[in-house]
Amino acid sequence: MKTDAARLCAEAIELTLVPGVGTKTQSRLWKTSPMLSETFAMDNHALEAFGVSADSVHALKSRIYRSMAEEIVDWCVREECHLVVRGTEAYPAALQEIYDPPLVLYTRGDMELLSAPSLAIVGTRRPTFYGLQMAEGLASDLGSRGLAVVSGLARGIDAAAHRGCLESGGRTLAVLGCGIDVVYPREHRQLTEKILQKGLLVTEFPPGTSPSPQNFPVRNRIISGIALGTLIVEASEYSGSLITARLAMEQNREVFALPGNLTSPQSFGPNFLIKQGAKLVQSWRDIIEELPSELRHRILAQEDCSQSVQPSLEMLTNEELSVLHLLETDEAVHFDRVLERSSLEITRLSELLLRLEMIGQIRQVPGNLYVKLARPPK
Amino acid sequence: MKTDAARLCAEAIELTLVPGVGTKTQSRLWKTSPMLSETFAMDNHALEAFGVSADSVHALKSRIYRSMAEEIVDWCVREECHLVVRGTEAYPAALQEIYDPPLVLYTRGDMELLSAPSLAIVGTRRPTFYGLQMAEGLASDLGSRGLAVVSGLARGIDAAAHRGCLESGGRTLAVLGCGIDVVYPREHRQLTEKILQKGLLVTEFPPGTSPSPQNFPVRNRIISGIALGTLIVEASEYSGSLITARLAMEQNREVFALPGNLTSPQSFGPNFLIKQGAKLVQSWRDIIEELPSELRHRILAQEDCSQSVQPSLEMLTNEELSVLHLLETDEAVHFDRVLERSSLEITRLSELLLRLEMIGQIRQVPGNLYVKLARPPK
Repeated sequence: MKTDAARLCAEAIELTLVPGVGTKTQSRLWKTSPMLSETFAMDNHALEAFGVSADSVHALKSRIYRSMAEEIVDWCVREECHLVVRGTEAYPAALQEIYDPPLVLYTRGDMELLSAPSLAIVGTRRPTFYGLQMAEGLASDLGSRGLAVVSGLARGIDAAAHRGCLESGGRTLAVLGCGIDVVYPREHRQLTEKILQKGLLVTEFPPGTSPSPQNFPVRNRIISGIALGTLIVEASEYSGSLITARLAMEQNREVFALPGNLTSPQSFGPNFLIKQGAKLVQSWRDIIEELPSELRHRILAQEDCSQSVQPSLEMLTNEELSVLHLLETDEAVHFDRVLERSSLEITRLSELLLRLEMIGQIRQVPGNLYVKLARPPK
Repeated sequence: MKTDAARLCAEAIELTLVPGVGTKTQSRLWKTSPMLSETFAMDNHALEAFGVSADSVHALKSRIYRSMAEEIVDWCVREECHLVVRGTEAYPAALQEIYDPPLVLYTRGDMELLSAPSLAIVGTRRPTFYGLQMAEGLASDLGSRGLAVVSGLARGIDAAAHRGCLESGGRTLAVLGCGIDVVYPREHRQLTEKILQKGLLVTEFPPGTSPSPQNFPVRNRIISGIALGTLIVEASEYSGSLITARLAMEQNREVFALPGNLTSPQSFGPNFLIKQGAKLVQSWRDIIEELPSELRHRILAQEDCSQSVQPSLEMLTNEELSVLHLLETDEAVHFDRVLERSSLEITRLSELLLRLEMIGQIRQVPGNLYVKLARPPK
């Protein structure tokens, strides 16, 4: 006799195997009956009202994919592949929130990573040396600080992100556009092995699925949906990474982008996204700053305060100190008010405010207002 | 007998010559008596209340700078240098609006340019080849479309901006940190000559003033203050161009910045500014888009519609057209509503929306809303 969990897995897989039942329809059916207990018993009319075509209704009701689904469950048990069905506890909470979460996830590796805070780093398959360096460097900076890095195991930026994260001792998730047992691209066999040891492979495609081009844009919604935010490192004008960024925006996730020279076609995408409101990233700090406050504080607290590059108050000039004393930590003060209170000319005051901001003593906020930053206790 | 205008010029110059009377004090005095008729007659106590020190009060009241000021006026008449006093008709309206407009401008060249719509392009004295190329190219793109280019005649980005503008047949303003008769740097003698023929030299410093370092940050407020917006092309961490950008923000002017690789120290400044809200520039269109609507329409109307790279409706696929028909020109539609109305999967719809946006058919607006762009009549 099968357990309920095994039945749920098998029926969820069966539903995804029926041709013509896409993620949108799966989502509608799931919302009506999350345990899928009623789905296969619905009458034809009801199924068609859910957007299932006549052909698909026939395939669904006749249960011709049932045995295939059960074989897949058995295969997963044998091959140490974990099945995670939408609505169950192990399913990633962040992914639950997107418009059309996949009904089933096939995973291999450290299952804890499904609920770990993570950032997606994606980009072109044909990066520049600059893009590769930055993807590796930022993935390493984030990974070593406890933020998992999600990417798509593709050539180029994706692989650099996985590698950079692993090399720093961080943990990484690879979301595939093929079956969990398919290594693609071939040259990433070694990288895949490393991810299995220290990270997690995730896919919504059944074992054996080959990496068809149409799988990748679909896969991208999992990359952006599982992460707190997505960083686009390099992407040319019609790159799939722009779709991932767009999906992240639609999922109300943070979108970050690495700026680059206009003369580099690979930087067209990130620059375009920044123009549209993505946050420009100059260092890992720009990403951490946008994370939920508890996580942000935890990560920043780990940073050794004594190693901080921010100068202490003793290193400020008297002129800088005099400006700093005109600002408040609790309330933003308007530039004009600072100017009135100071004995400085406008250009000199601007210089001093800029310098104080760059060394992290103050911050400018919209409306030409300035606020003094509270110093973290040593 | 002197005319009123000549008297005003002489007295305005005299006020700027008194040591210790800075732009802030000049501004206060001017606001009380714009024709300066009462300024020299004020009693000591009143002057001190305006922030004039005891020494400066003495220098002001004893009129010891009067003859020097009159000599300067005579020199200007002889040397074809125009004097423009704050509050008079020829004074640039945009400059009038800043916190501390200079009391007197010395100008040489095409006086019409003082009231022409203009954009400032500034940057480091030590640019990369990328920065030089972009400054020249963007100045040329804007200059040839009738927008005057303002810069500071410094080495590097400034000179490239002036040159690019002139080469496209555009008109350019150079704001100096020295006297109108001083050529600095020396190697810009030829460029200065060209600007005199097709553009305008502007300075607030009296003839003969040498280019002291402290003059340049002060001069920067005129560059940003005279222009509709300021574009920062390259600037390292503590560059004066960042001050110019900061001044532009404080003057409520648009700030634009050219993105660049993080590995280039010269791109630190622009990238930092973009993070703070400056608009990232990928082409001249990004600048024109932010100009006042009348000017924007005039410039865009000159563009040959037939040369437009935007494809006509006939070039769209049926799938793209079907999405386009779900949008409105007058009202933004939410992504979810488009998704519901379409028969498309979310990832496919995202792809199509992205493509429609890139070819200029639609635009995404904040809140995950989409609007169809009205087509300009051919």
